[in-house]
Amino acid sequence: MTLPDALSEALSFAGRLADAGRPVALEHFRSGAAADNKHAAGFDPVTAADRGVEAVIRELLAEHRPRDGVIGEEGAPSPSRSGLTWVIDPIDGTRAFIAGLPTWTTLIALQDETGPLISVIDQPFTGERFLGAANRGAWLEHRGDRRPLSVREGVSGISDAILSTTDPGLFEGREADAFSGIAVAAKVRRYGLDAYAYAALALGGVDLVVESGLKAWDAAALIPVVTGAGGVVTSWSGGPCHGGGQVVAAATPALHAEALTHLASASA
Amino acid sequence: MTLPDALSEALSFAGRLADAGRPVALEHFRSGAAADNKHAAGFDPVTAADRGVEAVIRELLAEHRPRDGVIGEEGAPSPSRSGLTWVIDPIDGTRAFIAGLPTWTTLIALQDETGPLISVIDQPFTGERFLGAANRGAWLEHRGDRRPLSVREGVSGISDAILSTTDPGLFEGREADAFSGIAVAAKVRRYGLDAYAYAALALGGVDLVVESGLKAWDAAALIPVVTGAGGVVTSWSGGPCHGGGQVVAAATPALHAEALTHLASASA
Repeated sequence: MTLPDALSEALSFAGRLADAGRPVALEHFRSGAAADNKHAAGFDPVTAADRGVEAVIRELLAEHRPRDGVIGEEGAPSPSRSGLTWVIDPIDGTRAFIAGLPTWTTLIALQDETGPLISVIDQPFTGERFLGAANRGAWLEHRGDRRPLSVREGVSGISDAILSTTDPGLFEGREADAFSGIAVAAKVRRYGLDAYAYAALALGGVDLVVESGLKAWDAAALIPVVTGAGGVVTSWSGGPCHGGGQVVAAATPALHAEALTHLASASA
Repeated sequence: MTLPDALSEALSFAGRLADAGRPVALEHFRSGAAADNKHAAGFDPVTAADRGVEAVIRELLAEHRPRDGVIGEEGAPSPSRSGLTWVIDPIDGTRAFIAGLPTWTTLIALQDETGPLISVIDQPFTGERFLGAANRGAWLEHRGDRRPLSVREGVSGISDAILSTTDPGLFEGREADAFSGIAVAAKVRRYGLDAYAYAALALGGVDLVVESGLKAWDAAALIPVVTGAGGVVTSWSGGPCHGGGQVVAAATPALHAEALTHLASASA
């Protein structure tokens, strides 16, 4: 599909931002020194990679999009004078990063007052770049190839679904009960993927992702990729979720509705 | 280090076997059709990729190593007339494969009556190939680069460890209690990785892997990569584990000993 020029340009610029972050992140990935520093100081998901990637992205934004706002995990927010704001998580999935696993990502989204418009979920080690334009389209760029993404439309319900959440142990109380009701019913469960789970949903692999406690920079970039690939993503009560908190993403509207019947009672 | 000629040749040939499997596996990875067939017939971890990869590997073995035995997940065992047997798991981590995640692997090991001598843990999508010669060395080949692998020697104990198991829900009874004692004490937990967890241990990322219910073809290829990188891998009672069953792999002898204090009471 053809995107409006402003969205197309923004998506292309988001790719440039991700390009700039890649070598910085990869310099620290699987480097013994980074892991040991991390451990020496006690476990802390803010790595040198986190700070370095956000710094190069903020530099490019300051130079080329000075009127846009910036919200990032690592720095102070900078206000928008254009109505547009970039939302950055330099390394999402810091635990995967430290463990040497290829499922951490760099998240970049551009949003206005209605929510995220375009986004990138970038995996520098595999070279996968998931791009989304909300409700319009999503694509995977991988080593010179680019193809449209589409959720698995044939999923018949939770009992047929591949479910993912980052850590089932993160839920407590009513949230834990609600998640458990879905987890026992699902066909397959996959854990520990952070934003990569939503990319896998857009690929047609994972069918349902249920999480809580997300920050705005964890959540914003998920939305254009999921809805662009034909999926549904909302809060546990069915409302907007780009501010973070409780998030449920599903391959189809029917699967999403079925998940909400479990989650609504525990919605914040 | 320099390997004896026979091991060096075997490791090189294992790489040729993995080379032959890669395009077959990748043809089915993230192909909508493969996933839908799987789901239409109910969940079954034997995919077209499983059968296809094992077939091309068995063909090469029959042609070039006709006197060696073969044990594979998909076909009948063929007896050894050389004292050597190849142990093959064409797609380890079938759930990751179906979910579109880059952490499934092809496992190839060569063993004699003492256990596995050399092995390959191959990830075709990322292009990572982990090679091991038991107690002698381990290497990562990745996109033209080759480097030696080494576990994280600085891990000070379970409370400092990144722990992995494929699914904590697979443990029952005494096994569940024993695993839980380690899981609550560990610094970080990562799930769903199958053999990739042992490769991550050899990389210095993951520090401890605890599993049970492995088959011989799940287990054999783990051992040369882990011990070649300086790690320790045994059954939960500290004995050999290449036949499968309960497996514990640790970055250091001290961490291994600490894990055994939790696991020994639940050892089979």
